[in-house]
Amino acid sequence: MNKAELFDQIKSKSSYLCVGLDTDIHKIPEHLQKADDPLFEFNKQIIDATIDYAVAYKPNIAFYEAHGLKGWESLMKTIEYIPKEAFIIADAKRGDIGNTSKMYARAFFEEMNCDAITVAPYMGEDSVKPFLEFEDKWVILLALTSNAGGKDFQNLHLDSGEEVYERVLRKSQEWGTADQMMYVVGATKAEALSNIRTIIPDHFLLVPGVGAQGGSLEEVSKYGMNSHCGLLVNSSRGIIYADSSRDFAKAAGKESVIIQQEMSQYLEKYC
Amino acid sequence: MNKAELFDQIKSKSSYLCVGLDTDIHKIPEHLQKADDPLFEFNKQIIDATIDYAVAYKPNIAFYEAHGLKGWESLMKTIEYIPKEAFIIADAKRGDIGNTSKMYARAFFEEMNCDAITVAPYMGEDSVKPFLEFEDKWVILLALTSNAGGKDFQNLHLDSGEEVYERVLRKSQEWGTADQMMYVVGATKAEALSNIRTIIPDHFLLVPGVGAQGGSLEEVSKYGMNSHCGLLVNSSRGIIYADSSRDFAKAAGKESVIIQQEMSQYLEKYC
Repeated sequence: MNKAELFDQIKSKSSYLCVGLDTDIHKIPEHLQKADDPLFEFNKQIIDATIDYAVAYKPNIAFYEAHGLKGWESLMKTIEYIPKEAFIIADAKRGDIGNTSKMYARAFFEEMNCDAITVAPYMGEDSVKPFLEFEDKWVILLALTSNAGGKDFQNLHLDSGEEVYERVLRKSQEWGTADQMMYVVGATKAEALSNIRTIIPDHFLLVPGVGAQGGSLEEVSKYGMNSHCGLLVNSSRGIIYADSSRDFAKAAGKESVIIQQEMSQYLEKYC
Repeated sequence: MNKAELFDQIKSKSSYLCVGLDTDIHKIPEHLQKADDPLFEFNKQIIDATIDYAVAYKPNIAFYEAHGLKGWESLMKTIEYIPKEAFIIADAKRGDIGNTSKMYARAFFEEMNCDAITVAPYMGEDSVKPFLEFEDKWVILLALTSNAGGKDFQNLHLDSGEEVYERVLRKSQEWGTADQMMYVVGATKAEALSNIRTIIPDHFLLVPGVGAQGGSLEEVSKYGMNSHCGLLVNSSRGIIYADSSRDFAKAAGKESVIIQQEMSQYLEKYC
């Protein structure tokens, strides 16, 4: 999916919500545990309930990989099931030397037909570039993550005066354009967003951490939005585990409507 | 496998060779392409031919993931096939927020029974710690990689005077011990090894890049070895693709003997 198509989706649904499919077998409703494929059955119902309010889905690969072959089957079925209108992000945080990254790119872009993959920057240019060779596919590079350990290295000060994550943003501009790269920026650092926007005014940002990880949607939208929205805001646990009963999908739908309605206001106000 | 057992293996085989199973369907001999499971069939023969001269095997997960479910099956069969005496490294370069890293740890340590997994440090402490909760299992943290892009961020100078990779080495000491953590250190920077040894005298180093990526085994051994060897030196393409005919396994065995004999000398000289 290209940038114009993504922005069209955002406008037509008045939403920049990404639903994180961190589907944990220990957290899904009891009545699904006996299904043939509980992870897929859960995801299917979540997708059906949220597709009118979400523009993107982000399966977290670890949650499937943890179940071996069976988990990969659930993942592939889930990705196939997601309607083509939605932007699919493989949250895989891969990154390796060139010939290896190329293999990962094939797995997620060709074998699975995802639109985007999250990539870790530590190994630099040749670990990222192989992902940029696919038309209308995206790299979402980790820049500033919202977890506690994020500060261990990302916020270190370089002798140039920059922090490490700022150098990641600047350096990676040399590798690809705003039509093929996005960045992960943790929402709990909303005050950093205006600074980030001076470095990368045009790029989409994937913002995890609204909800369970605790960021303010209005702050993120106010400081992070640009003229083509430029934001995908992720919520995982707040939506998919909104209710643990048989009504889990209904509750997920309800939560996603609440977020979508708030987003609709911010799109009018800040975009 | 614990540190004492690993050192015992090294002494008994006079080797610290790790064979990288970067098994690429496009590079394996033609006569295997028609096998039921070409990747596994290739690996099986490589393992049989090298097991007397290698103490570790490192399947590169991307090469299997690229083939979807079938690839994961080949990977799992390969890991099961590797004799228990060998140290098994999942070269996966994972690293995510806490609950996600925990899922990856389960996948590689419980589902697959690997001894170690390579982990990227960018997300900091809580992305690494879940891997350290498994007894006799190891994290191999990326510190200084030998690829061209490694210098993009790893060699940046901090305002403290350190380079980023040095901070990774120092900071991560707070998370685990030399009995559960190793580091990836690219062999092409052999001159950096003595500096690294002042920061982490006791840890094992996984050194890729001897061979195809071009480092000198003697330099690495001279500057990297400690009293319990402290080195695993990886060779992938130089061994597994030594020959592309029906005799590929024989050629792989021959290559691994050559390296093992050289290693045997360095163990006497520097350990």
